[in-house]
This record gives sequence, structure tokens and C-alpha cells, in this order.
Amino acid sequence: MLPDRAFFDRLADAANAETLPRFRAGIDVVNKLAGGFDPVTEGDRAAESAIRALIEANFPDHGILGEEHENVGLDRECVWVIDPIDGTRAFISGLPTWGTLIGFYQNGRGRMGVFEQPFIGERYFADGQQSWYRGPDGERALKVRDCGSLANATLFTTSPHIFEPDEYARYSAVERQVRLFRYGVDCYAYGLLAGGHIDLVIESGLKPYDVGALIPIVEQAGGVITTWDGGRPEMGGCVVAAGSAAVHAEALALLNR
Amino acid sequence: MLPDRAFFDRLADAANAETLPRFRAGIDVVNKLAGGFDPVTEGDRAAESAIRALIEANFPDHGILGEEHENVGLDRECVWVIDPIDGTRAFISGLPTWGTLIGFYQNGRGRMGVFEQPFIGERYFADGQQSWYRGPDGERALKVRDCGSLANATLFTTSPHIFEPDEYARYSAVERQVRLFRYGVDCYAYGLLAGGHIDLVIESGLKPYDVGALIPIVEQAGGVITTWDGGRPEMGGCVVAAGSAAVHAEALALLNR
Repeated sequence: MLPDRAFFDRLADAANAETLPRFRAGIDVVNKLAGGFDPVTEGDRAAESAIRALIEANFPDHGILGEEHENVGLDRECVWVIDPIDGTRAFISGLPTWGTLIGFYQNGRGRMGVFEQPFIGERYFADGQQSWYRGPDGERALKVRDCGSLANATLFTTSPHIFEPDEYARYSAVERQVRLFRYGVDCYAYGLLAGGHIDLVIESGLKPYDVGALIPIVEQAGGVITTWDGGRPEMGGCVVAAGSAAVHAEALALLNR
Repeated sequence: MLPDRAFFDRLADAANAETLPRFRAGIDVVNKLAGGFDPVTEGDRAAESAIRALIEANFPDHGILGEEHENVGLDRECVWVIDPIDGTRAFISGLPTWGTLIGFYQNGRGRMGVFEQPFIGERYFADGQQSWYRGPDGERALKVRDCGSLANATLFTTSPHIFEPDEYARYSAVERQVRLFRYGVDCYAYGLLAGGHIDLVIESGLKPYDVGALIPIVEQAGGVITTWDGGRPEMGGCVVAAGSAAVHAEALALLNR
């Protein structure tokens, strides 16, 4: 039996109960940072525990790959990939562009997923066929846009500093060709892409749980998401997502020139 | 007679009626861009007109400095400074970190102001004595935090690309010393600073209307905001805002070394 939308809603709601009360709650980040910057918060761990408890109770034969706790049964047919707080730096800065990411893989393919931003009150959900949005401005099916070519594209990436030097040279070849680029919003950029507001997201160094939930959300909104070499993105790494095959192909050509 | 909170609320509500329906509304930005990228939207102009109409009807002897329409009476005792949509690039990208900025200067000093983010439903307001926040998590007085020193600070700037080369060298001297830095959120960063979530904002190339509303919000939350040379920031330019005098002084020393 596969999970349904109601189950994803339960997962997201359970995560929200752990993340939202801790957002902007004046957690003393400074004083827990002996030994360097560690943005992992209590909320991160508590949310993943809440999500895992529901999965284990309802789908005990599924595997789980999470950011905060040990992996379970990654060789099983169905595997959940969980990032309880993607964008922890945004979270600790009070910026509501972080998200809870819960993806569902079947036979190694991203099939369903939810991306939740509870402070704004937004939920992006891929049901296996179609992606959906629910937020302050209502509920609707998600649909990417096709801006025609890279020269018309709006590009997002989390930061120019996420790239290794050789990756940065490849990334910046694309950045130079787009109409507009912006830094800063982690998972939120993939939601904007699925919603048809932007055209391209390019990142590197992603873990499976950073992207697992976002793959079906992008694809089932009509978008294209792959690694920089055009392969499947389920294992993370260097990822490029686009609103159309043409823009994706242009970006890939520049990333691999 | 000076404006009161109820009047600022009317201004923000009037702006929202013009901005919010146009946000994520699928305005065809691509096709209006013959001749280069121009993020000025209909919403920008309509919101400023709505704000001006209320000011002119209620305070006909006040001056107005706005982004979209002609300036009026800048030599008067009371002058309004208006940016109907600060962060137009965020706006057209569907990212809810833009804001409507309405500042009120008396004798050249920022005295009151509102920063409104209507999609999330957040209003930051400085009443002349104290700064206030109203949002999804309730209403409260705003209070900056003191992180102690630059080494503990979280720094925001809109983008490393906003700086001229010599400015970038000065800015990056600070960036290298902080615990965490982030790019990307325009006016929203000053709200995070006033709310005690981050410690430092450094920008350049600001117009008076980019910062006018934010000056009293930062100052009346207990923060410090000046130009890079330590002067008053009402006319914009290179601006640095901090949650404490100590962090501000450290940043200023590096910016001017």
C-alpha cells in the first residue's frame, strides 16, 4: 500500500508541531556553538523523530533516510527521505524560507513528496501524478512556466559559496547568460520553480534528503530536474532544475562545456 | 499634527490592495522587457499612487519623496519617503521577502515608519518611541539582540553584486569576520535585525526610500543604523545596521580600515 495525501498531511502537521514553536523563539544559538557553527536545532531532531514515528507505525516495511537519525532499510522498495528543516541557516536567522522536506522513493525513484513552510503557511505536494500548492492565496495545481530560453530565465541558487571552485566556473557560465539571478533561499527556490515564478535552480553538494521531496514536486508540475550530467537526481550531488526542457538543455550545455 | 498608527495602517492596507493581487499573478514580465530588465511593475506604481492620495488628502502640507512619481516639497518640515515595492526582483520571482516601505521624516530625521509584507502577513511599525511587529505569530514590541561581538554575528546583505569594487573590498573585510552571512532579502533583513534574529545588515547604493522607513524601525527597536562613515542614513547610500553599538563599531572599523 502506498501513502496517500492525508498521510503526507499528517507527516507535515506533525513536523510543524515541532518546528514552528521553535522558529524565532529566541533559541540561544550563539551559546551552543562552542567548536564552530552548528545550525542543527532541537526542532530539526524533534521533527524528524515525529515524522519517523508516524512512518514506522504505518509503514513498518519502508526504509528511511533522514538527516538527523540513522538510516533504515535503504535497499527496500519504498524509502522515505527526510530533511526536517532544510535551510537551517535561514531558520536560525528568522527567515521563513526554510522548509520541511519529506520525499517518498519507490524503486529508487522520487514518486511523492511534500515541502512545507509552516510560518507562511505553504504546502507543496506531489501525489504521484500532479503537484499541488496550498497557501495564503489559496489552493491550486502547480505548473511550471516555459520562458523560452536561458536569456529570459530567472535563476536561483542558495549562495555562490556552495560551489567548489571548478563547479563555480561551470555555474557562473550559466549565471552570465540569464536575465536575472538571485541568491539565498534553499528549498524554497524549487517551490517557486514548480509554481511557475522562476525558471532555473542550480545547486551542488546536495544530500538525497535535500532534494528527494522536491524531485516529484518539480517533475509533476511539468519541470525537469537532473544532475549536472543529466542523470537522475535522487542521490543528490550537483542538481539543476528547470521549467522547460529547452532551458534545461541550454543550462546543461553550459555546465558541461 | 503628526500621523498616528491608525493612519500608517490605512497606508499599508491601501498599498496591499494594489500589490498583493499582483503578486504571483502571472504578470508576463518577460514580454514587457524590451530594452533590458525592468522590474517595475504595475503594482509598484499603483501602490505609490494609493499611498500618495491618502497622504495628500490628510497631510496636504507634507512633502513626498517616492520611487515612482515626482517628488513634492522636500524642504518641508514633514516629508514622507515611499518605496511601494522594495525588492521588486523578489516580487517578480514570487519570493515573499519584498516589502512596502513608508517612512516619515521630521526635520530630516526618520521618526516613524512601516514595513509591510502582506503575503506572509507581517507589519513592522515604528511609532516614534518604540517599534512593533504584527505577524502570523502574533503581535509584540520589537527588540534587537546583542550578540556581543562581530565573531558571533549573523550578517545579511542583498547580494555581493550590489557593491562597487572598492565597496566590496570593504564589505568583505566584515564578511570574513562574522559567524554566518546570507544573501538575498532586501528590506526583510532589517526586519529580522529589529526582531533580534540577526545582528548586522550592510548595503550600498540605497536611495532614501530604500531605507527611510527602516531607520526608525531599527532605532526604536534598540539598534544602530548609520552610513558606512558613521553619519545619519536618511539620504541612503552605503548603510550599516547593527543590533548593538559594539557590533556596529566593529563593523565600522573594518569598513573604514
